[in-house]
Amino acid sequence: MKINNIHYRTIWLEEATPNVVQVIDQRSLPHEFVIESLTTVDEVAIAIKDMHVRGAGLIGATAAYGMYVAALHADVDYVMDALKTAGEVLKMTRPTAVNLAWAVERQLAVASMAANKDEAVRITRETAGAIANEDADFCRRIGAHGVSLIEKISQAKSGNTVNILTHCNAGWLAFVDYGSATAPIYAAHDQGINVHVWVDETRPRNQGARLTAWELGQHGVPHTVIADNVGGHLMQHGLVDLVITGSDRTTYTGDVANKIGTYLKALAAQDNGIPFYVALPSSTFDWTMQDGLKEIPIEQRHGGEVQYIQGLHEGTIKKVLLTPQTSPAVNYGFDVTPARLVTGLITERGICDASAAGILKLYPEKAAQTKLSP
Amino acid sequence: MKINNIHYRTIWLEEATPNVVQVIDQRSLPHEFVIESLTTVDEVAIAIKDMHVRGAGLIGATAAYGMYVAALHADVDYVMDALKTAGEVLKMTRPTAVNLAWAVERQLAVASMAANKDEAVRITRETAGAIANEDADFCRRIGAHGVSLIEKISQAKSGNTVNILTHCNAGWLAFVDYGSATAPIYAAHDQGINVHVWVDETRPRNQGARLTAWELGQHGVPHTVIADNVGGHLMQHGLVDLVITGSDRTTYTGDVANKIGTYLKALAAQDNGIPFYVALPSSTFDWTMQDGLKEIPIEQRHGGEVQYIQGLHEGTIKKVLLTPQTSPAVNYGFDVTPARLVTGLITERGICDASAAGILKLYPEKAAQTKLSP
Repeated sequence: MKINNIHYRTIWLEEATPNVVQVIDQRSLPHEFVIESLTTVDEVAIAIKDMHVRGAGLIGATAAYGMYVAALHADVDYVMDALKTAGEVLKMTRPTAVNLAWAVERQLAVASMAANKDEAVRITRETAGAIANEDADFCRRIGAHGVSLIEKISQAKSGNTVNILTHCNAGWLAFVDYGSATAPIYAAHDQGINVHVWVDETRPRNQGARLTAWELGQHGVPHTVIADNVGGHLMQHGLVDLVITGSDRTTYTGDVANKIGTYLKALAAQDNGIPFYVALPSSTFDWTMQDGLKEIPIEQRHGGEVQYIQGLHEGTIKKVLLTPQTSPAVNYGFDVTPARLVTGLITERGICDASAAGILKLYPEKAAQTKLSP
Repeated sequence: MKINNIHYRTIWLEEATPNVVQVIDQRSLPHEFVIESLTTVDEVAIAIKDMHVRGAGLIGATAAYGMYVAALHADVDYVMDALKTAGEVLKMTRPTAVNLAWAVERQLAVASMAANKDEAVRITRETAGAIANEDADFCRRIGAHGVSLIEKISQAKSGNTVNILTHCNAGWLAFVDYGSATAPIYAAHDQGINVHVWVDETRPRNQGARLTAWELGQHGVPHTVIADNVGGHLMQHGLVDLVITGSDRTTYTGDVANKIGTYLKALAAQDNGIPFYVALPSSTFDWTMQDGLKEIPIEQRHGGEVQYIQGLHEGTIKKVLLTPQTSPAVNYGFDVTPARLVTGLITERGICDASAAGILKLYPEKAAQTKLSP
């Protein structure tokens, strides 16, 4: 997508420095635009863990490039050992997003076929590039499928503005390009459909207020930032036509792990008869999990992310304390929205019910991996 | 309640300066403890509108003292005119909380019986004092009734910690003393029952993270601050035994207007079979309204309260920008939780169903004011 009319992806290699992974350091957005160079596995792991990069797809792509960096720096005689160690380090950074483990496993599988270090380097670089390209392409296709939902609402409203609520950032900053939840919105906007987005602030890390608002603004999509508390009130008063969120892990039965607070919006959507869709590329499915509430590990982050917040003060980014010094805070990163509250899933292959039957109809080749198979 | 072991109320007159209303300026809490002197109706109105003081009961008491200040400064020949004008100014400051209009009307009624200005000054001062005392007494009684709910849960859990979630600040800072939602919690803690409070941060003004956390900490009640997004996840995992919130206006049919986001927690409580109680003194009932969603006016405040937040940075309070400069924000102050989601109401007369039948059984003398009466 474009930043000041220059096209960027969230992760890339420069031709002149192919051994260095370039990412946008998202911690400084929207106040500063910072590009960071990652040269070691540790730097990649820190970038994921401390959320320089974040979002289901981008975490996967970054881990994939992390494996390439691991291959680059591996001892010629122990390439696979180095890759396995790197994979463990990378997988430990964020427990909830399944794309991360998926990308690591894919790199290990292709690298295991390499005859030597040079080939492992080449194949992991190509695979990282392929994962990034696929991610972008899948998101573009999510947009092409999802836009039909917005078109229908627009027609039903005689062209009046379609109000879409989203939580967190499932935009292009969370992927390599386009985004998942935002892809149908960008597609609709580009087709001339009147859309307006209610952007949940998304405490404590404010990915909505900082990233989604910034993305939408750069693309010219009308939007309004709201506190996370507001969505229910808007739905009660007919001010939301559609909810679209992303996902960090979705079971093959349709339970959706996504940024903490998603479940509350799904409840409100159900209570007010508003469609609640989740957009995700197939790399976000967990084909082994049946019960999202019981099985998906929920990341617990440092309470300091609740106690402190950063923002712009007189031109520089400052961190301020919000709570009493002595009050503890806990910080769960995700919650699970049960499939019963999800109207449908928007994937790169089309839209389906949030159920094993619906999902496996689109991905029949995965049935063997699920617990449904004998 | 106590601050560093000195007893304070949220509003009072000093003996040496009875013409000056003293309040705690809650904007600086928890970082600084500031007492503000209010000497004119305009100062009182600004203190309410800009939330130096806030909370259902305290807004009522402050408006009552504002009417006393109006009498003090009135022209001897036009005392009632001055009071009526002051009443209009005060009622316009915050539209949702019904205690405000209730206190103004009560002052106008008693002042209308005064023979002259001196008597009007005396009677409005006494009535403001009576309203403040009543508020404190009603909250104390809410605690005495509500503690039974916590006792029962504690017994059912064999004395293990009772986890109570609350939203916003319905603590003593929102009233004159004790608080509404916190009164049963303080009572339980003082009786030696193990309680722990999940404190919703309550964006955008962070009354939970700033005020409730500070109050509970001062009183020694174990508590943890959470982002507003977290409550649903906690409820899904059995980490919440009871929800208690306050209210800014409750219809005689049991619909509850309270701080924005309350509705989302009520939905989550219902989805997980957790009791959801609302604590309120009878001054918070609106005996004329039947349908809270359609009838209760919802205050819309400035979007800047969402875009900016203040906190402590290197020892001083600073305001930082959270959003892109060009992203608009909207800021609804309250939402309405339909009676169907409310397990019960805790009032100074006891606990009742959130229904016209339940409420009017406790307040039979009010039946004539409702639309139910022919």
